[in-house]
Amino acid sequence: MRDLADALTEKNCDAYVVYDSSENADMRYLAGFLTSDPYIYIYSKEGEGTVIVSSMEELRARRETTCNVVTRSAAGLPDLLKEYQDAEVATAHMIGNFAGKKLLVPSSMPVGFAQTLMSVADVIVDRGTVAGMRTVKSSDEIALIREVQKRNEEATRCAVDLIRKSEVGEDKGLIFEDEPVTSEKVRDVIAASLRPWKCEERDTIISCGTDTAMPHCLGTGQLYANQPIVMDVFPRSLANGYFADMARTISKGAPREEIVQMYAVVHEAKELAAEMLAPGISGADVHKAVVDFFAERGYVTAGSSGFIHSLGHGVGLEIHEGPSLSLAGGILEPGNVVTIEPGLYYPGVGGVRLEDMGVITENGFDRFTNFDEQLIV
Amino acid sequence: MRDLADALTEKNCDAYVVYDSSENADMRYLAGFLTSDPYIYIYSKEGEGTVIVSSMEELRARRETTCNVVTRSAAGLPDLLKEYQDAEVATAHMIGNFAGKKLLVPSSMPVGFAQTLMSVADVIVDRGTVAGMRTVKSSDEIALIREVQKRNEEATRCAVDLIRKSEVGEDKGLIFEDEPVTSEKVRDVIAASLRPWKCEERDTIISCGTDTAMPHCLGTGQLYANQPIVMDVFPRSLANGYFADMARTISKGAPREEIVQMYAVVHEAKELAAEMLAPGISGADVHKAVVDFFAERGYVTAGSSGFIHSLGHGVGLEIHEGPSLSLAGGILEPGNVVTIEPGLYYPGVGGVRLEDMGVITENGFDRFTNFDEQLIV
Repeated sequence: MRDLADALTEKNCDAYVVYDSSENADMRYLAGFLTSDPYIYIYSKEGEGTVIVSSMEELRARRETTCNVVTRSAAGLPDLLKEYQDAEVATAHMIGNFAGKKLLVPSSMPVGFAQTLMSVADVIVDRGTVAGMRTVKSSDEIALIREVQKRNEEATRCAVDLIRKSEVGEDKGLIFEDEPVTSEKVRDVIAASLRPWKCEERDTIISCGTDTAMPHCLGTGQLYANQPIVMDVFPRSLANGYFADMARTISKGAPREEIVQMYAVVHEAKELAAEMLAPGISGADVHKAVVDFFAERGYVTAGSSGFIHSLGHGVGLEIHEGPSLSLAGGILEPGNVVTIEPGLYYPGVGGVRLEDMGVITENGFDRFTNFDEQLIV
Repeated sequence: MRDLADALTEKNCDAYVVYDSSENADMRYLAGFLTSDPYIYIYSKEGEGTVIVSSMEELRARRETTCNVVTRSAAGLPDLLKEYQDAEVATAHMIGNFAGKKLLVPSSMPVGFAQTLMSVADVIVDRGTVAGMRTVKSSDEIALIREVQKRNEEATRCAVDLIRKSEVGEDKGLIFEDEPVTSEKVRDVIAASLRPWKCEERDTIISCGTDTAMPHCLGTGQLYANQPIVMDVFPRSLANGYFADMARTISKGAPREEIVQMYAVVHEAKELAAEMLAPGISGADVHKAVVDFFAERGYVTAGSSGFIHSLGHGVGLEIHEGPSLSLAGGILEPGNVVTIEPGLYYPGVGGVRLEDMGVITENGFDRFTNFDEQLIV
């Protein structure tokens, strides 16, 4: 927590205050108490963490968080509600009374509440201190993310096997046990593999044919032979909140030649990036190297065609977090957990994406992903 | 959209601007394009809706939204990035150039970005216009929520049947087909029932014994006979984003007498609330009536004991939205979809909660929930 303490000293603030639910990754990281309703986290300049929760959450909070637990009632909310007749104003006063009159808040705080808080305290907006802390993973965090990636590979294996084992109907549609093999069916298979491990899939991408030219198209309906099938699976552990992320592109039988060539080049691009990853290099430089590599091979990016997204992103309590491997990407350091996911997309033709993940080490890149790359299954 | 147009006129603004992902319910409601990455929605004073998305999302956005679709590149972001060297500053300038120099923004906009936007435009924070629009459901929205509640009842039926059919082991632990019946197992059964309907369960509460005294305790491990089991199930349609919400309390065999008495009183409280619900009454008055009713019956609320949460909440694209049936609850109107969920909680004893949902009509309350209330199964 030294970074947060330093930020408080530097800005001469009494406390750092977050008012959000644990859906907010910073909140989960700092307070470690899971609830979909907003509550308050306060980190004092004395280095004490406190959560202020509703009475209904008190027992659960005491069980789950290592912070001090105070109820809104104990913090005086009922009287403040009577005095101000407005829940937000009363909550702002409660925070001011408890935390002090000069407060550091995250840039993610809703501007409406921030303005209310400004009426009772001096409010300074912090720029990414906690997000910055989160970009450097501890060995415990790395172990949790590796574990989720292991479950991800088991689940993706089930998906690949289903497609490999399926038969090809007259219309080229894939069939397994007399049922059409659909994007939905493949997602079901992935979810069923993850669930016993308390991991959840959401918005898993199983797209086929020309839909694969849309990187975030989830895919729907029957899958077809001789077409690219993009599988981008990023499960989250419901127990600890950490994500993993992997993408593979496969085809049941040979796809058109452009796809075969794109696949080879995308694979080369990923390995080029993996070679470059190390402390001290910037995410922007690695991204640019891949853009240049694609251009050399004749794959130019323009509009909705080519390499139309960033090379990679950090992964942790959010599926997309810092550091970024893109034009805006800064210097990488040991402990950064990042994806490398080059892709090529051509409307009317299709898309290919391959994604691995790993951690930046003292001397390079330790890849978590250990899953074969075979286009034709 | 008249409310939004009126707000623009009243505040003399050029446009209403949201910059968020479709995880933000206002964004989903207005733009109707699903993506976990933030994008921009602009509603102009001329009444035009536009989304500004990354190139990688262009094709999908054109497929999914009825708004105008503009890419960041077409809106000039690349040049602005070169000019300002900061993604947030460049994005703010892009918005200013496109939407105008006097902008209305939601109170949910992150304060960090709002401050950046203030450097390029006059920014006025709107207080809940869109959230207000969302509290009055259209007949289409009501049909979607009814449909999800129907799936919710089918799934909860599977959960109740599993517990009913289970055997009681020597230690009173529930067993089905030689396996312990756990909270996790019951959640699996619910998820499996929902999944074919593209509905998802998250944080379903299946708590047992004294854990039921914590209203939001999810529950873990084996379930036991002669103990209250609180089942609070609130699935969401992945297709359209709408939620439903229902809670029941059951016991395999008779629980201790206090629980039986609490159940009868909680049921009465729910029916009392259902009778009161109508246009013109305030959520606060209904909540207070239930608090008074519990007190009359000797169930006083203090600290973490008694009726320690609000009576109900709106349900729609968020599981908890307006209007509120609590001390802060305002006047109800036709089209409000609300829950009524009285509960009693006593640490060391346990908890009972019963929850129905429905819509406020011209002359009363049309209940969606049609699920039996039977404590002992």
